[in-house]
Amino acid sequence: MLKGYQSWEFKKRPVIMGTATIVGPDEGNGPLGNEFDIVHADTKLGQDSWEKAEKKMLEEAAQLALENAGVTKEHIQFYVGGDLLNQIISNSFAVRTMQIPYLGIFGACSTSMEGLALASMIVDSGYGYQVLTGTCSHNSTAEKQFRYPTEYGSQKPPTAQYTVTGAACAVVGNRGKGPVVTGATIGRVIDMGIKDPFNMGAAMAPAAVDTLQSHFRDFKREPGYYDLILTGDLASVGYEIACELLEKHKVPIKQTRYYDCGLMMYDLEKQSVQAGGSGCACSATVTYGHVLKRIQKGELKRVLIVATGALLSPLSFQQGESIPCIAHAVAIESEVN
Amino acid sequence: MLKGYQSWEFKKRPVIMGTATIVGPDEGNGPLGNEFDIVHADTKLGQDSWEKAEKKMLEEAAQLALENAGVTKEHIQFYVGGDLLNQIISNSFAVRTMQIPYLGIFGACSTSMEGLALASMIVDSGYGYQVLTGTCSHNSTAEKQFRYPTEYGSQKPPTAQYTVTGAACAVVGNRGKGPVVTGATIGRVIDMGIKDPFNMGAAMAPAAVDTLQSHFRDFKREPGYYDLILTGDLASVGYEIACELLEKHKVPIKQTRYYDCGLMMYDLEKQSVQAGGSGCACSATVTYGHVLKRIQKGELKRVLIVATGALLSPLSFQQGESIPCIAHAVAIESEVN
Repeated sequence: MLKGYQSWEFKKRPVIMGTATIVGPDEGNGPLGNEFDIVHADTKLGQDSWEKAEKKMLEEAAQLALENAGVTKEHIQFYVGGDLLNQIISNSFAVRTMQIPYLGIFGACSTSMEGLALASMIVDSGYGYQVLTGTCSHNSTAEKQFRYPTEYGSQKPPTAQYTVTGAACAVVGNRGKGPVVTGATIGRVIDMGIKDPFNMGAAMAPAAVDTLQSHFRDFKREPGYYDLILTGDLASVGYEIACELLEKHKVPIKQTRYYDCGLMMYDLEKQSVQAGGSGCACSATVTYGHVLKRIQKGELKRVLIVATGALLSPLSFQQGESIPCIAHAVAIESEVN
Repeated sequence: MLKGYQSWEFKKRPVIMGTATIVGPDEGNGPLGNEFDIVHADTKLGQDSWEKAEKKMLEEAAQLALENAGVTKEHIQFYVGGDLLNQIISNSFAVRTMQIPYLGIFGACSTSMEGLALASMIVDSGYGYQVLTGTCSHNSTAEKQFRYPTEYGSQKPPTAQYTVTGAACAVVGNRGKGPVVTGATIGRVIDMGIKDPFNMGAAMAPAAVDTLQSHFRDFKREPGYYDLILTGDLASVGYEIACELLEKHKVPIKQTRYYDCGLMMYDLEKQSVQAGGSGCACSATVTYGHVLKRIQKGELKRVLIVATGALLSPLSFQQGESIPCIAHAVAIESEVN
């Protein structure tokens, strides 16, 4: 049910029955490499285009998430998903294969948690028994679409972020075992006037902080309720700004308990990823691959994932617009409380 | 709650508290011209780009829908919307102005009913009291993005469709007066292998028929339950194919009670719109501008809107892919049953 102004409380505690995470070679070589289900050595996955490779990763993630949840696609009522590509083709084409009723969404890199929030809401409210949610991104499709042709080899400023090649899906259901989804906060669009698409972390940080503040207000919770709070993909520049903003607004988040998925995916010292990871798959694979494993091991009990998205397009940038940003937060807790 | 396999029954009958429809000059000159709230003579609305004009139409529609519903934006918990443009920038930028928590969606021209279904579900389940939903499209932004530069003046085959310039919003709430939303059916992706983006009606017709059949199965209803069934924007070619498919599958829909929004927006004899209208705004403006007025006048009691979407992108077309299509159905009834 509605909680506060812009949040949902899931009283029936929908279960994350199973997940799957697929990544490319750079992500496999990162510090979390061992936590993903499949690491592909070839960023094309044997396909004849990067777009088809991105779609194939999502198909693999969907199939494996169903297997890991112990269900087949006939048990799934709805698929909720989206991606970064124009007209979210990776999702629409993957769903064509799956043949599950489809709710397409777009939240740029916040898509993972927009999808998990909607899937959990559908299950919690009884409008579905099992819902599949997923997202994906691919470094080469994103570079091609948003920046320069990949082959061009353009140099990047240190504030730029590296789009994660990967896909992740989760089955959310009204039964079974696994971590549970207890709440979500839907973000507002925040635009601080930043126009540089090579500094999206700085653009997105205020949206993350706005959603965090809204979440604590709506649930009447202190940040200490959570063992771990992760923003989506602010990476090094945005993470520092978020920390400063949280301090300025007197949000008592301990930095030992707050980190960012964009800083976790790669080894920033050794891998050439500028400020860190980004892309729809960043928070999705870190959450479903790494964070859930830590919850299942008992290392974490309550986690808040705040996926951030920069809602620009190359055309809005060319027309001189600044970057509207958003962040959606989802609370995931251990089934044993 | 979930009804059948892929449908939602809204037992609390969320109310369409107010709507607004904004269109451009061609739509104003069409047979429904008098039914829209605002008809703009200038397709640029005084803006310096068509994209900004499209966004401005949506902002106007949102503002006017709130006024017509007798609420302010502070009464609205969530905005659910999307459009055809890459990264749905019209919606994301319009929401930046509105400052309402935002769920971005993408369903191509099915977006209107994906949004109305989700908004109604949120209200029906108590996850929001009032939800705003909207969509928009613009002939010149769509031509530019999906086909050829508008200035190029390329010729079109008679199967092509004409993207509606317009925007439409609806406030769905748990109180007030107005037509009510009683159910929805979420579509699957259907792809019959059609690759011609100048014949989208033919590509979308099977998706419309699949969703219609699913709707009648899930609700255990005969088509005769509805006074009027409207598909989104199949236009002349797709409408004929849909009629043939319905006959082939023995779905007893009387053709006097089934028509298509794409055939209603323009005068196909006098206006140069090839097979008829399309675009996110097509089913949205026809439904919120024309159909709801007929319900309020007592001319119609039960209506089913089946908005159709072609989920291609220029890039998927260039890579030789066929066109995956989808249709979402929403049942709207008179508050006095």
